[in-house]
Amino acid sequence: MEAKTPSESQAILTDLVLPSETNPLNNLFGGELLARMDRAASIAARRHSRRIVVTASVNHVAFNRAIPLGSVVTVEAKVSRAFTSSMEIFIDVWTEDRESGARTKANEAIYTFVAVDETGRPIAIPPIKPETDLEKERYEAALRRKQLSLVLAGKMKPEDATELKALFA
Amino acid sequence: MEAKTPSESQAILTDLVLPSETNPLNNLFGGELLARMDRAASIAARRHSRRIVVTASVNHVAFNRAIPLGSVVTVEAKVSRAFTSSMEIFIDVWTEDRESGARTKANEAIYTFVAVDETGRPIAIPPIKPETDLEKERYEAALRRKQLSLVLAGKMKPEDATELKALFA
Amino acid sequence: MEAKTPSESQAILTDLVLPSETNPLNNLFGGELLARMDRAASIAARRHSRRIVVTASVNHVAFNRAIPLGSVVTVEAKVSRAFTSSMEIFIDVWTEDRESGARTKANEAIYTFVAVDETGRPIAIPPIKPETDLEKERYEAALRRKQLSLVLAGKMKPEDATELKALFA
Amino acid sequence: MEAKTPSESQAILTDLVLPSETNPLNNLFGGELLARMDRAASIAARRHSRRIVVTASVNHVAFNRAIPLGSVVTVEAKVSRAFTSSMEIFIDVWTEDRESGARTKANEAIYTFVAVDETGRPIAIPPIKPETDLEKERYEAALRRKQLSLVLAGKMKPEDATELKALFA
Amino acid sequence: MEAKTPSESQAILTDLVLPSETNPLNNLFGGELLARMDRAASIAARRHSRRIVVTASVNHVAFNRAIPLGSVVTVEAKVSRAFTSSMEIFIDVWTEDRESGARTKANEAIYTFVAVDETGRPIAIPPIKPETDLEKERYEAALRRKQLSLVLAGKMKPEDATELKALFA
Amino acid sequence: MEAKTPSESQAILTDLVLPSETNPLNNLFGGELLARMDRAASIAARRHSRRIVVTASVNHVAFNRAIPLGSVVTVEAKVSRAFTSSMEIFIDVWTEDRESGARTKANEAIYTFVAVDETGRPIAIPPIKPETDLEKERYEAALRRKQLSLVLAGKMKPEDATELKALFA
Repeated sequence: MEAKTPSESQAILTDLVLPSETNPLNNLFGGELLARMDRAASIAARRHSRRIVVTASVNHVAFNRAIPLGSVVTVEAKVSRAFTSSMEIFIDVWTEDRESGARTKANEAIYTFVAVDETGRPIAIPPIKPETDLEKERYEAALRRKQLSLVLAGKMKPEDATELKALFA
Repeated sequence: MEAKTPSESQAILTDLVLPSETNPLNNLFGGELLARMDRAASIAARRHSRRIVVTASVNHVAFNRAIPLGSVVTVEAKVSRAFTSSMEIFIDVWTEDRESGARTKANEAIYTFVAVDETGRPIAIPPIKPETDLEKERYEAALRRKQLSLVLAGKMKPEDATELKALFA
Repeated sequence: MEAKTPSESQAILTDLVLPSETNPLNNLFGGELLARMDRAASIAARRHSRRIVVTASVNHVAFNRAIPLGSVVTVEAKVSRAFTSSMEIFIDVWTEDRESGARTKANEAIYTFVAVDETGRPIAIPPIKPETDLEKERYEAALRRKQLSLVLAGKMKPEDATELKALFA
Repeated sequence: MEAKTPSESQAILTDLVLPSETNPLNNLFGGELLARMDRAASIAARRHSRRIVVTASVNHVAFNRAIPLGSVVTVEAKVSRAFTSSMEIFIDVWTEDRESGARTKANEAIYTFVAVDETGRPIAIPPIKPETDLEKERYEAALRRKQLSLVLAGKMKPEDATELKALFA
Repeated sequence: MEAKTPSESQAILTDLVLPSETNPLNNLFGGELLARMDRAASIAARRHSRRIVVTASVNHVAFNRAIPLGSVVTVEAKVSRAFTSSMEIFIDVWTEDRESGARTKANEAIYTFVAVDETGRPIAIPPIKPETDLEKERYEAALRRKQLSLVLAGKMKPEDATELKALFA
Repeated sequence: MEAKTPSESQAILTDLVLPSETNPLNNLFGGELLARMDRAASIAARRHSRRIVVTASVNHVAFNRAIPLGSVVTVEAKVSRAFTSSMEIFIDVWTEDRESGARTKANEAIYTFVAVDETGRPIAIPPIKPETDLEKERYEAALRRKQLSLVLAGKMKPEDATELKALFA
């Protein structure tokens, strides 16, 4: 299969924060943001693979900035690396100030999706060919993250996770 | 106030069609699409005006193509023309085929929003400076649509609607 | 097929405005009202035709009055005219003051629905026989609106739209 | 306060059964119907009292007929009797067959609401003056139901519930 | 079939009160609580019977305590008695104070469910063997409630409702 | 502040998988499960701290088992370790087979919450005193996870993450 670029898979979901999606401090619930990111990421994964896709895992997600009621939130998802049948999706979340129009990075997250056939079995997908510097950096890091995930799941020995070990050398 | 371009206001809302949003033929409900277009248009209007915005009217909307359950739907909204405190928003709706990746135009719609202050009173907004040919064409047509709307509401005499009359000459 | 009256198709949807349905000024979102009107109109279209019905178009809708959080909103939909397989539905929206009980017209809108068979193909429906003065007036105007819609879609020449041209004479 | 008729309080909520509201047999969930009846009843209670109203109790409700996905359901609520600050609301639920147009009684239910002021304290409301035979019958039965409710709550001695005892004589 | 204990069927649904679920006094809507109790009760009924279950009736429910926005609400449902194919489910609702952690009884309710096969026909279920004093008391009362329900539905003569009559003796 | 046990914070959210929460393979959406886990975890965090709590991060979550439409899903959340103002919440997700009643582990996840005052500033919380073997094991691992999180965020040097380094030794 021919390689595709990350931007071919890009999915943008811009929407408002409604009252039913806020916590007692009037900010967007973490759980609601996780759900929006999952929908945007699933669309990016589907655009890359042209298959049915299912969420396989969510990497560590930090919620550093509260997103208040009435905000406009933009979730941008792109495939950062493709493996045999799984894809890592990198998600950037932005909010914008209504008065100044300034855009602020509110979050980032990494989800993994698997492409499956109609019966739910994993199926091969095209590779990714990163273009920009940021895409290349995320492409490299994706391999280390996959190794960490395999180590934590007991499916890879720590000493075989070459790229990962370099972090702790 | 300085003029802005339509693309500065562009809002993109890409999302899935979920089972609770479909009619007995398993296609997206017209009403649900109208609501998504309203949310995207309100974000475009807010980006242009940097004010609180409220829906003033919805122009004629035709539903020519059914959008089936499980589709990925992209709603793109841009300000096509700004008047004193109101804005016309032009909305294009696309669906894409999962297997071929082909994008099909599913709908277009025109909403009008008004920018208001905290007490709900209309407030002045920047003008629009169209760039592309399509933006220029929509900018011109927006004036005729405003005249038609004023004529139908009895707020303008048909003979004063110069640009509109040209259509029937 | 035997003609039916508009009142045989009447659908009434009275419901509250809940917090999740309001904009930053604490009024009902335009998009939510469009969705409620679509559901009520679809029920009226179904009652007239006794068929599966799908939204074909929404005519110009103006939002002249804000509807605040906690309001009781009544959406009344009736078939105003039936064509071969399509129906025009006229929708009146009312709010009522809790303390005085006074009813205020908040909106009106016109939707067009098409009756279809199980495969989605248009199918013939009964004609409409208006009874009250208001029903007769809306019945007449429905023909002009249909002509305007055909002219704007390029499916009818402006000079053939006899009833419509009279407006601009 | 002047008495009002039950029909002055009538609230009609006609809406579709959507896929997200059905159980594994593809019929409307009991819980969803209970929620719709509560909203319609609260509107009837508010129309009678012109006050803020809160649900005080739900009488026995039997679900004798399944309501399938895609049905049109009409919930009709009317105040059947008013006490000092509480009201009994009688609710009739109808479904209709799309093809024949025949209307079938699907359910009936009885809710009690209390009118309160802005701080939540009970407040006096107008009496009810039933008009039709059915309204009169429900008005009489409402007193027996109130007695049963007081007896079950231990707030009235069974021997004082004169109208109720007659049922078991 | 072998008897089961009530605690084998226990279902616990702890969740927040969100803004979209509140009335104008900022308390949980009665209708929303009825829907949550229906879901918890259906899970208890299903755990006892291991069948598809449908709501048959809701016994008298009193709403004595308002449950404010932001509360944590716990709905606990257990089968209190099983008949041939129907089950009575007893539901206790608790709220807890965030600061003191104190738990308060907010409501109780009784729902009846019927176990059905894939075609919707009633099917036999195991009996219940109560263990605690409270379970035994509710088990006894369930029979009286069933008699009352049959009497009110005209399916049992009042003089045959032995346990029920004792209440009025 | 006095230490509390994990079981004092336990929150159980048992609910059904509804049609609007499923993907094209008719299984629960990953995003919906993430949102349910967030709600259950926030209740556990609130029970431990008796404060307003906000989601700080979500640890790696793997979705190993699909959860089909109509399933009963139980989300159990308990505080596994408390730091100065943050808490790690360990979440176990179970599904049960309707016919056999067998319970299967479907997922586990780790969320971090921070306790804050009314203005959103972090505030001190009680420590955790694990009781069971599983609670003790999770309590120990929580420290390594916190170190990993600090290392990945660049807030701790890898060589100082003593417990974490031991994994790769």
